[in-house]
Amino acid sequence: MEKTLEKSRTEDHHLKTSSFPFTRTELIKKFEEVRAFTEQITDPLEIEDYVVQVAEHASPAKWHLAHTTWFFETFLLEKELEDYDPIHPQYSYLFNSYYLQTGVPHCRARRGNISRPTVKQVYEYRESIDEHVLNLIKDATDKQYEEWAPIIEIGIHHEQQHQELLMTDLKYMFSQNPLNPVYKEIERPKAKSIPENSWIKFDEGVYKIGHKGEGFGYDNEFPRHKTYIHDFELANRLATNSEYMEFMNSGAYEEPEWWLDEGFSTIRDEGWNSPLHWIKVDGKWHQFTLSGLEKIDPNDPVTHVSYFEADAYARWKGYRLPTEQEWEVASETVPVEGHFADAGYLQPIALRSEKGGLQQMFGDVWQWTQSSYSPYPGYKPLPGALGEYNGKFMCNQYVLRGGSCATSKSHFRRSYRNFFHADERWQFTGIRLAR
Amino acid sequence: MEKTLEKSRTEDHHLKTSSFPFTRTELIKKFEEVRAFTEQITDPLEIEDYVVQVAEHASPAKWHLAHTTWFFETFLLEKELEDYDPIHPQYSYLFNSYYLQTGVPHCRARRGNISRPTVKQVYEYRESIDEHVLNLIKDATDKQYEEWAPIIEIGIHHEQQHQELLMTDLKYMFSQNPLNPVYKEIERPKAKSIPENSWIKFDEGVYKIGHKGEGFGYDNEFPRHKTYIHDFELANRLATNSEYMEFMNSGAYEEPEWWLDEGFSTIRDEGWNSPLHWIKVDGKWHQFTLSGLEKIDPNDPVTHVSYFEADAYARWKGYRLPTEQEWEVASETVPVEGHFADAGYLQPIALRSEKGGLQQMFGDVWQWTQSSYSPYPGYKPLPGALGEYNGKFMCNQYVLRGGSCATSKSHFRRSYRNFFHADERWQFTGIRLAR
Amino acid sequence: MEKTLEKSRTEDHHLKTSSFPFTRTELIKKFEEVRAFTEQITDPLEIEDYVVQVAEHASPAKWHLAHTTWFFETFLLEKELEDYDPIHPQYSYLFNSYYLQTGVPHCRARRGNISRPTVKQVYEYRESIDEHVLNLIKDATDKQYEEWAPIIEIGIHHEQQHQELLMTDLKYMFSQNPLNPVYKEIERPKAKSIPENSWIKFDEGVYKIGHKGEGFGYDNEFPRHKTYIHDFELANRLATNSEYMEFMNSGAYEEPEWWLDEGFSTIRDEGWNSPLHWIKVDGKWHQFTLSGLEKIDPNDPVTHVSYFEADAYARWKGYRLPTEQEWEVASETVPVEGHFADAGYLQPIALRSEKGGLQQMFGDVWQWTQSSYSPYPGYKPLPGALGEYNGKFMCNQYVLRGGSCATSKSHFRRSYRNFFHADERWQFTGIRLAR
Amino acid sequence: MEKTLEKSRTEDHHLKTSSFPFTRTELIKKFEEVRAFTEQITDPLEIEDYVVQVAEHASPAKWHLAHTTWFFETFLLEKELEDYDPIHPQYSYLFNSYYLQTGVPHCRARRGNISRPTVKQVYEYRESIDEHVLNLIKDATDKQYEEWAPIIEIGIHHEQQHQELLMTDLKYMFSQNPLNPVYKEIERPKAKSIPENSWIKFDEGVYKIGHKGEGFGYDNEFPRHKTYIHDFELANRLATNSEYMEFMNSGAYEEPEWWLDEGFSTIRDEGWNSPLHWIKVDGKWHQFTLSGLEKIDPNDPVTHVSYFEADAYARWKGYRLPTEQEWEVASETVPVEGHFADAGYLQPIALRSEKGGLQQMFGDVWQWTQSSYSPYPGYKPLPGALGEYNGKFMCNQYVLRGGSCATSKSHFRRSYRNFFHADERWQFTGIRLAR
Repeated sequence: MEKTLEKSRTEDHHLKTSSFPFTRTELIKKFEEVRAFTEQITDPLEIEDYVVQVAEHASPAKWHLAHTTWFFETFLLEKELEDYDPIHPQYSYLFNSYYLQTGVPHCRARRGNISRPTVKQVYEYRESIDEHVLNLIKDATDKQYEEWAPIIEIGIHHEQQHQELLMTDLKYMFSQNPLNPVYKEIERPKAKSIPENSWIKFDEGVYKIGHKGEGFGYDNEFPRHKTYIHDFELANRLATNSEYMEFMNSGAYEEPEWWLDEGFSTIRDEGWNSPLHWIKVDGKWHQFTLSGLEKIDPNDPVTHVSYFEADAYARWKGYRLPTEQEWEVASETVPVEGHFADAGYLQPIALRSEKGGLQQMFGDVWQWTQSSYSPYPGYKPLPGALGEYNGKFMCNQYVLRGGSCATSKSHFRRSYRNFFHADERWQFTGIRLAR
Repeated sequence: MEKTLEKSRTEDHHLKTSSFPFTRTELIKKFEEVRAFTEQITDPLEIEDYVVQVAEHASPAKWHLAHTTWFFETFLLEKELEDYDPIHPQYSYLFNSYYLQTGVPHCRARRGNISRPTVKQVYEYRESIDEHVLNLIKDATDKQYEEWAPIIEIGIHHEQQHQELLMTDLKYMFSQNPLNPVYKEIERPKAKSIPENSWIKFDEGVYKIGHKGEGFGYDNEFPRHKTYIHDFELANRLATNSEYMEFMNSGAYEEPEWWLDEGFSTIRDEGWNSPLHWIKVDGKWHQFTLSGLEKIDPNDPVTHVSYFEADAYARWKGYRLPTEQEWEVASETVPVEGHFADAGYLQPIALRSEKGGLQQMFGDVWQWTQSSYSPYPGYKPLPGALGEYNGKFMCNQYVLRGGSCATSKSHFRRSYRNFFHADERWQFTGIRLAR
Repeated sequence: MEKTLEKSRTEDHHLKTSSFPFTRTELIKKFEEVRAFTEQITDPLEIEDYVVQVAEHASPAKWHLAHTTWFFETFLLEKELEDYDPIHPQYSYLFNSYYLQTGVPHCRARRGNISRPTVKQVYEYRESIDEHVLNLIKDATDKQYEEWAPIIEIGIHHEQQHQELLMTDLKYMFSQNPLNPVYKEIERPKAKSIPENSWIKFDEGVYKIGHKGEGFGYDNEFPRHKTYIHDFELANRLATNSEYMEFMNSGAYEEPEWWLDEGFSTIRDEGWNSPLHWIKVDGKWHQFTLSGLEKIDPNDPVTHVSYFEADAYARWKGYRLPTEQEWEVASETVPVEGHFADAGYLQPIALRSEKGGLQQMFGDVWQWTQSSYSPYPGYKPLPGALGEYNGKFMCNQYVLRGGSCATSKSHFRRSYRNFFHADERWQFTGIRLAR
Repeated sequence: MEKTLEKSRTEDHHLKTSSFPFTRTELIKKFEEVRAFTEQITDPLEIEDYVVQVAEHASPAKWHLAHTTWFFETFLLEKELEDYDPIHPQYSYLFNSYYLQTGVPHCRARRGNISRPTVKQVYEYRESIDEHVLNLIKDATDKQYEEWAPIIEIGIHHEQQHQELLMTDLKYMFSQNPLNPVYKEIERPKAKSIPENSWIKFDEGVYKIGHKGEGFGYDNEFPRHKTYIHDFELANRLATNSEYMEFMNSGAYEEPEWWLDEGFSTIRDEGWNSPLHWIKVDGKWHQFTLSGLEKIDPNDPVTHVSYFEADAYARWKGYRLPTEQEWEVASETVPVEGHFADAGYLQPIALRSEKGGLQQMFGDVWQWTQSSYSPYPGYKPLPGALGEYNGKFMCNQYVLRGGSCATSKSHFRRSYRNFFHADERWQFTGIRLAR
């Protein structure tokens, strides 16, 4: 099954009605920055690290480099340039993810079988496409620019999504190596203590949620619409490692009463008894990070938990997970600030602020909601290949909100809906309680 | 994984606040009727037919007979009668479905491995438990009656749910036999033509949905609560076989654009190209029914389709499935009437009425909604084993509404929430469009 | 994959050159005895016991009853009687095992899905075919008798093979029922002590093995041919439960050094730590028998061990398993006597004789040899459907010799080659050591 | 399950009784040559090509480089040098294949998950171990030399086996890449026509087979022993592509009568209709080689066929495969000459000689025999870790004889027993008929 993060798209009306908000110079700057950031992520790698695929869900770095490039080639160059000559006829097969209308994609599970093209050739591919795209921006007529710029903007956001996958896929790949390789040494701030969990109240009523129309958004954030919300309270901060360890130590992984039925089957079949990347070394819990194996810090937000674990933890505490509507309504009360990928920590960080109110709403970890991923009322799929997959992942997945330490801030917005299956946990996923 | 129809339960406050609405005589009558109806269903069977399990999801008739009995034994007799002596110490293991707090159940996939107890012994088990229950009703003090009657009522509704499963499991079992056995000859009314599809309008606004408090309800129907609904229209009737055949004939089973991503994988992996129980004989579509193989009647409502197929059909038509909120709001405009199990047809029947308005809202086939099965705001699980599984199936399932030709009318109410996985289709499931 | 015991066939030249050795009266007697013995085996069963299939390799009793009948119908009646009208057109599909030239057989794994035909109908099928066969014997011309009698003889031996499978399949089916049903109460003789293991010597040289031409034989026993055998010694008796328990208690199931590579994977993947049908009850080893659960008797021959276990046991003792050539050469020194199915014990029995020499060569348990099942030099497959499968099981199976407590004596001969896969152990299989 | 080619070992008595036949200078020369040849094989590779594992049976080049080195480290340096300090403590885990007595090996299926150590580090590992081994040879006392030299000789032969695997694993890896990468351009001689198939006769009698004691041999070739062979004839040459295409074109892949039962299941389940590496391009059969995709040459020996296909082909022709005893006896009549890896063709070559008699007995392709891989009479496993696996692969595998175009001539001897499972075909395996 194709992966779900490939949800890049633009909202129908958004494309049609707003004239594009950036000048050519601004767009070129954005494009160059984002393309460069991808290569900044791969910079610490050895050639060998680009090739390996350790699980169907975790693509090789080489593939991410090529696929984000293929996106510009396929949806812009091949479509818009009459005499465009593809760099390699097979790349459109090898580096397609799941866009069935652009041709049958190479089997996802076999991305790690392909030693060629080499890493060098993939970088050359990137360079060549970059040159084409930049020339295209420069040479376009105004009418063409208005038409092409939104596609480039999607491509930029698409690449930013893949940057997050690239980091978590690399983390997963290194974690499978008994040598515990270090991707990069990173100094991370610590907290001696953190604020107690407390509750922030929100009132019953009709609210509006969804994208407000300013700036970029995927079509699944549209249209903005009314929803009825009952009284609820949200935890002031994320659940921590020490809180989650209480849950583990209570024996909850053995007790069916806390778990969804499919959750209990999953943890039993997979033999899970802790979050992903946790390993006991000499009787002490450690976690594998992109800086290697580290002792668990009790004050850090817990991460790499599945929906099943988040839900069971909440039930065990006597609470529940928020709905995505509740989350979005609450999020309006605080500014979009937090530890995003730009901070460079690549792990969630303990809350160090002592001020009250809602904290850690953005960055650090994606927060599981109890909402199944489904279309907003009035949602309309786009025509054509870019929109083919629009609703196609709206089944058996759960919405996550808030971004993470691997999300670029410029990619994020309040109405952003991320989604994964209930058993997936290799992303930076965490827990905020509601009641 | 345990099956989902086992969702019998009673709503918390309901149990606590209303004094029980039936006299002892009335309760005894209900109990006897429902218990007798189960044996009426098994009446046409040969001994051999009781034993076979052809798939994990389809339990043997013998097991249904015993499990519905075990329910009364476990939640009433063993719990409430001090000196109760179980008929067989292993029955509580063999006939438990998934109640983990009452002990480890016998593996669901192996229910067909058990030739003993014999069918005769299972009937004796039923008889013995019936006697105990009837005595218990008669001998109870008023205080005891008030406490026990609701448990018996749950047991009655639990058995009615299993009656529907029993019929669909038998249908599935016989369908796997190349001899195409006939369960029972049934005459079914036909329609020469049926009304065109038209649309019924409903207005935007805040509505209330959920159980109103009168009569029996499972806890997942509570609490009644407000919800915001946007303008919508509902098809006046169910989708028919002839309409579905247009979808099939258009090549839609080969075209990814109509399908959810997991849906397209499913139809490809399973080789589906028609509803379940459809077979081509000499180039003509037939379907296997409890009366044997029959030609497809174009006017009958299509049934035995999965959520994936219902959703793809709706998208192909340019429409969508309703939400469960929309369905319930619309259903308030028509009385609860239709072809239930009581009609004895055991297949959905073509619409014969020519009057306008919303038709076929109840009975015939369960109508897939686009709503993921999830807790209503304020939903609270019951304490104890009966409630252990309360929320445990609220994951990766979709809500169906309206009852079917295999649902007893006395078991059904407007707020009833049935739920199955998106790939399940051995129940009488069908399609009503929305837009 | 089709099962292997279906190897009934007749040797090419045998059929052609010898005039058939039995008169019509003798053949009728044999036929009636063997057909009656099958029904004697099913006599203690309830209807429900005939239907269940608990594993692909263990067919329902009903299927055995019908398949052995189908054999006469297919290879005799349909082929030889011009105006033969099959009792049911689908039976040839349902009750074919793996004879691909007679049509596609019903899937082996689904034999337990078929509640119809009923047991009663299957008995009627038997009765009707019996009548046809008996009439055919009586009415045949001498020329026809000479042609048909050998096919009937194969059918008789085929049915005798299935009698053994029927007993072991019933045992396996009952063993999966937590109620531990008793097929039949049987008194079995016990031994207070048994002779020590000692070694019988045989000399190097050229020997002849294979069927000598007198009496019935399958084609895999032909042609009789020369083989070179080196000096070897055979254990005087079978390995016992107490000897095997020493092996188990030594921790051998955890130690890779005793096991074939595929054997160690198998015991680890399957979680084996004892022979099949062994269960620890209150800390004591018991075994499930056709008379229910019984304490392990240390003096009884060990049974229900796989090739992997027999081979590991031999290696652990410092010895090895015999080759089939060694076994046959040694067997020539003793008469064909032992506990066969005719003895009625349905379990191997402790050796009670105190006389020296080679003991327990026949009956009790099939003895694993280290010989892969392969064609004798000069072996020739038969033409036509009866011979289609001739060599087709000569791959990845191991030869067993000597017959068992479930083999009819009249079915057995010294040159008999039974064969199973190295991981199969639901037959009465046991161990004799060599060095 | 661990792979089978890892069968390097030395025969018991051989080690003990013969003083070692090579001087230090000779041994050093051999060691250096073989170690260098491995790196000659990897010379045309890109870094990326070393890392990829496309199937459990096909290890990455990097792993082969390291594992052959680990062998010397584990069985020589760590065991014999008191103060030996391993280069990396985890290498003994990562590069162990299946020697359970030296520790739990890293999971075979995950060898491609390990990007580190890098290729460069693996070459450094090789260099360092080489230096140690060479010093050890030079510095050893005579007594030590006599003890250590045989272990080094095993290590050399072990590495030569892995050279063959390395070539076939690379071929398999490249074949999975839709870009059809070329490992190396190779000119191969062609034949305009080749001699007809004819038969060479051999007489019945007692023969001796097995290693004669001169030179190196694995213990499975010992002891030399007598065997009885009946009259037989061997085809004068290997079966060709054009002959095999007749088999394919006859529809044999659809007809069960030619196939072993497990063979027919395998080709049906795997969808096989030609040898491995055959692909139809524009209606013409091609095969993937280490020089890329090439048209099938009808005169070349057919290769990459499984035992199942070799056996079915023989049956379809009306013949059979030889036994390994027949093959060895026949092979004594011709000198050990042919196209080995030293010829550099890396594909079997059409027979160009017109002289009569037995041809192509050595090199080109491994010849499937009908003999199950089993111990010779009197075979004795070695004590200790090197011998732990001695008999452990003697189950469900078939013997192949003669060497191939990827076998080094200096590694080969007439008594060499190669073995694979009946469904394996990524080695250079082919067919010689017998009757």
